[in-house]
Amino acid sequence: MKNLTLALAATIGFLHADPLPSWNKSDSKQSIISFVDKVTDAGSPDYVAPAHRIATFDNDGTLWSEQPMYFQAYYIFDRIKQLAPEHPEWKEKEPFASVLKGDLNSALAGGEKALLEMAMATHANITEDEFSKSVADWLATTKHPKTGIAYTDMVFQPMLELINYLRLNDFKVFIVSGGGIDFVRVFSESAYGIPPERVIGSSIKAKFEIRDGKPVVIKTPEIDLIDDKVGKPVGIHRYIGSRPIFAAGNSDGDYQMLQYTSAGEGPRFGLIVHHTDADREFAYDRDSHVGQLNKALDDSKTQNWTIVDMKKDWKIIYPEYIESTPSQ
Amino acid sequence: MKNLTLALAATIGFLHADPLPSWNKSDSKQSIISFVDKVTDAGSPDYVAPAHRIATFDNDGTLWSEQPMYFQAYYIFDRIKQLAPEHPEWKEKEPFASVLKGDLNSALAGGEKALLEMAMATHANITEDEFSKSVADWLATTKHPKTGIAYTDMVFQPMLELINYLRLNDFKVFIVSGGGIDFVRVFSESAYGIPPERVIGSSIKAKFEIRDGKPVVIKTPEIDLIDDKVGKPVGIHRYIGSRPIFAAGNSDGDYQMLQYTSAGEGPRFGLIVHHTDADREFAYDRDSHVGQLNKALDDSKTQNWTIVDMKKDWKIIYPEYIESTPSQ
Repeated sequence: MKNLTLALAATIGFLHADPLPSWNKSDSKQSIISFVDKVTDAGSPDYVAPAHRIATFDNDGTLWSEQPMYFQAYYIFDRIKQLAPEHPEWKEKEPFASVLKGDLNSALAGGEKALLEMAMATHANITEDEFSKSVADWLATTKHPKTGIAYTDMVFQPMLELINYLRLNDFKVFIVSGGGIDFVRVFSESAYGIPPERVIGSSIKAKFEIRDGKPVVIKTPEIDLIDDKVGKPVGIHRYIGSRPIFAAGNSDGDYQMLQYTSAGEGPRFGLIVHHTDADREFAYDRDSHVGQLNKALDDSKTQNWTIVDMKKDWKIIYPEYIESTPSQ
Repeated sequence: MKNLTLALAATIGFLHADPLPSWNKSDSKQSIISFVDKVTDAGSPDYVAPAHRIATFDNDGTLWSEQPMYFQAYYIFDRIKQLAPEHPEWKEKEPFASVLKGDLNSALAGGEKALLEMAMATHANITEDEFSKSVADWLATTKHPKTGIAYTDMVFQPMLELINYLRLNDFKVFIVSGGGIDFVRVFSESAYGIPPERVIGSSIKAKFEIRDGKPVVIKTPEIDLIDDKVGKPVGIHRYIGSRPIFAAGNSDGDYQMLQYTSAGEGPRFGLIVHHTDADREFAYDRDSHVGQLNKALDDSKTQNWTIVDMKKDWKIIYPEYIESTPSQ
């Protein structure tokens, strides 16, 4: 709850002065405020009724960091180690054997197929409650290998302010993540103030059964939805049922969500978080294996998407810095 | 919007006197009120935080009528007639040929397979927006064959009051329908005050594509989720991500949703609407082809589910009667 409390305190404290206090004065900040002003002004031709004020945010790289590897991948590796005693065969079987030896690069050498195999082994054949507890326990006890802080503290304070600002203006704010829906749902409310039912993400199938006399839902090892690229508009259709008017992402995985959002009638806002700050976070775009941002950057002008330059536009990155770093 | 306005007016007007004015004094009414009182009382051992106050309602037969046939089936038949000029082959091809001749019984003789074929032909290969518009137009212009009133006026006033009562007590209220998710989403907000993103239902798959230069989501003819029986807890897991504390249904199709809800820890409420009123609505249960209620009725005592007897427990059925029939 710490992040959220800090974020709320920051937002509420500055509400009358500035709805986005961790954002430097910039064109991107001004364009966000102008957009919110016009869609909430009942006298404006651009007014949008609250029911249609749908905003969708990518998670990895947009609301929290994603380097040097998606945080969920760390969960998968740790979970493999935890489950290893029940799976003696993993000692000889790739990609599990490499994980158990601590050689993550080799484990990932098998590409998407290997990652999917590891995801299934760690996310399926478990009840929904057992899975949530496993993720919650992991988040509560694990630190990021580079920063040494908890993963859920590596959320972007300026984006928390943006979420709160939209919510205070009667937007319905959703996460639309390429990451696992059940993984993100565990921390979405405490980290971002976004309740689990407003989280959309990649998913595996599930089934209902009576286990040990109790009716439960079991996650099963079959892909349900890959909520990335063309899957994001499909996920939005499935879970929300209408086109957003505001979308935020940071990579080419968000291209179609931004495109789908921007193509609707009336006022639309597309935002891209550009990771430009190697000192305070990470700097990467066109050549990155994680969060590659290439085509969306090329097309941002013609699509009228707002590029947020983290280094220039944000006073602080993570909420902790509120306490340790005086803001400008 | 008429139903909702009436419902809200009725609820707000009687708020201090009685949160459920269209419900006769009865054990079922009292048990609902006692449940809401205890889960919202911060001093009670049964207190439930708002984030966990999840309530799920079946739609057909629980929130609106479903006889002599699911209302969506009428949409399917009308849509087949509307699309027939584009499908000359349907004149010779069952079940379409029977529909075009007006022989609905023969059209349905092919059972679930035939119904599914008709559903696909009328729900797929169309953009999400085109489908929604088609349903909205149909609802605005079509009357129920027996009552002669609009389908969206055949919603149960006592259940509208119950939804509002739960919402006023910070419940998150969802529809969990065996009917089509995109069909119910068209009228859920105007008829029940439940926004589209809180509707769960049966679904077909969808894909993203650029059509005529515009990015759109197209509904495709493959089953995605059958949100009935064992599919209801799976739908709840997918869309909400946690177990409800309150569930309402009216048929054996709701059995697993009720069972899943009731099996959670802490206070739980399961409600079954029993259609007992042939004069004011319809009377059916164990032998009905639509909305069969048999096993859930048998097990209601051991499961501690509250049976609502429509004839005895409800002063009025549909909202229109508020104007034409003085309440007791």
